[in-house]
Amino acid sequence: MSLAAVTIGEYIEQLSRRVGESLDGLVPPETQPPETIHKAMRYSLFAGGKRVRPVLCIEAARAVGGGEPDGIMDVACALEMIHTYSLIHDDLPALDNDDLRRGRPTSHKVFGEAMAILAGDALLTHAFVVLGGLGDARLVSELATASGTVGGMIAGQVHDIEGERQPATAELLERIHRAKTGALLRASVRMGAIHAGADEEELDALSRYGEHVGLAFQIVDDLLDVLQTSEQLGKTAGKDAAQQKITFPAVHGIEASRRMAEQERVAAHACLEGFGANAGRLHELADLIVDRSK
Amino acid sequence: MSLAAVTIGEYIEQLSRRVGESLDGLVPPETQPPETIHKAMRYSLFAGGKRVRPVLCIEAARAVGGGEPDGIMDVACALEMIHTYSLIHDDLPALDNDDLRRGRPTSHKVFGEAMAILAGDALLTHAFVVLGGLGDARLVSELATASGTVGGMIAGQVHDIEGERQPATAELLERIHRAKTGALLRASVRMGAIHAGADEEELDALSRYGEHVGLAFQIVDDLLDVLQTSEQLGKTAGKDAAQQKITFPAVHGIEASRRMAEQERVAAHACLEGFGANAGRLHELADLIVDRSK
Repeated sequence: MSLAAVTIGEYIEQLSRRVGESLDGLVPPETQPPETIHKAMRYSLFAGGKRVRPVLCIEAARAVGGGEPDGIMDVACALEMIHTYSLIHDDLPALDNDDLRRGRPTSHKVFGEAMAILAGDALLTHAFVVLGGLGDARLVSELATASGTVGGMIAGQVHDIEGERQPATAELLERIHRAKTGALLRASVRMGAIHAGADEEELDALSRYGEHVGLAFQIVDDLLDVLQTSEQLGKTAGKDAAQQKITFPAVHGIEASRRMAEQERVAAHACLEGFGANAGRLHELADLIVDRSK
Repeated sequence: MSLAAVTIGEYIEQLSRRVGESLDGLVPPETQPPETIHKAMRYSLFAGGKRVRPVLCIEAARAVGGGEPDGIMDVACALEMIHTYSLIHDDLPALDNDDLRRGRPTSHKVFGEAMAILAGDALLTHAFVVLGGLGDARLVSELATASGTVGGMIAGQVHDIEGERQPATAELLERIHRAKTGALLRASVRMGAIHAGADEEELDALSRYGEHVGLAFQIVDDLLDVLQTSEQLGKTAGKDAAQQKITFPAVHGIEASRRMAEQERVAAHACLEGFGANAGRLHELADLIVDRSK
């Protein structure tokens, strides 16, 4: 099937479905005791997520090697498990206290707070069960570091919580974003590239692609929170402003934020120059991520 | 220095201190932003824990190779990070709701619930940063599986929560224990042995040692909860009974529980037969664990 024969939307839908099938095979079934925890893990994993991180991971591998290397689905699914755990814990009453996620009640609303905490822990842990099985400790280091407290996802969550008590500056905004969503998106691209055997130069170019796409993604996410209704968004809209979160529109305004997203799109494309046709879907993904806000 | 020259108590004190020093070097300093999360991680890591899992890990390595292989402290510290994360999350209001741990206020009492959740997440994540750095994915698989939902620590926590609503049978008790504390204690011994290059036979014998010692440890822990005051225990005593937790004394009675611990001690010693003098400290550890209740 040629690249042009399938639109990027259809392509991602197919790839997301395959990611979902792989996740289904990697997570213990609901009938496996203790049933409740596996139900809770699956409830959040199969809640209509867009599988952005797995798709970036798989397409980065394709950019390097021209195809899908053995085990790439496991790498992709480990990323989705980490992302999903972070959403479950983020939504908890003690953190963002969100009742709605992707149009459905959040984990603690359905399973109670104790089980939601454990389901998050379990998904975080299971990501490393899956990665450990692949036998490449570099992937473990990448994922754990991107999820951690030094410039990683947890650092971002802490900055985010503490940022609510600080003046909203462009510098603070960038620091929060780089850690909270940027690190894992960058790691998604890097892990796909590493698993496909990228050399230093390829890994460097794709890391920068991941940073630009990650920043574009966050800007657009912030814009959507301002511009869309809860129904369109599938989660409580305007929540960022209500919680006085530091966002791109709050700091830079809506129009400047849109221009920033455009700049990141252009920069992302430029990083892919050396990869030729194998990076076709990565080009389309950068566009798709920015165009979500239109 | 000969084995006999230092008593097991002194020996463990020295080894625990070295584990503490290694932990200090492996966890970001309190001055590293975001400071709060690193303070919270360190508060619980340096709260006077007995370092049982690190000590078992290091001594299992010694039983196999006669010394401490390079990197064994990292393996040992990763185990302590997982154990500490589990305590922080276990103590949360939504779970055991405990205000006191090792004689000090629990993490959420000091740092608030949000930061305690994130500190637990951070320690869990950091264990894999550390293990990833060692380059051996087998250790990652061991630790993640022992911490997970299929017979691992999280399975035990779920059984524990749900067990409060079920009749207390010997079978349920064993299932909870094997998962909740047994899996990580067994993994401590296994990971030390694997890191020291154990062959199949050695790994099998030490795994069984870990199971017996783990069971003895839990029985004694349950006995201490019944027999000691909160002051002696450093945490709220009698909490198990108050929360209708399934414990060995509750199911089997105090005297039978003591006899069971003795049986496990004897079985643990028997597993070490093939290791000669290198397993001297593992023999002493088995005794020490059982004798805590006297």
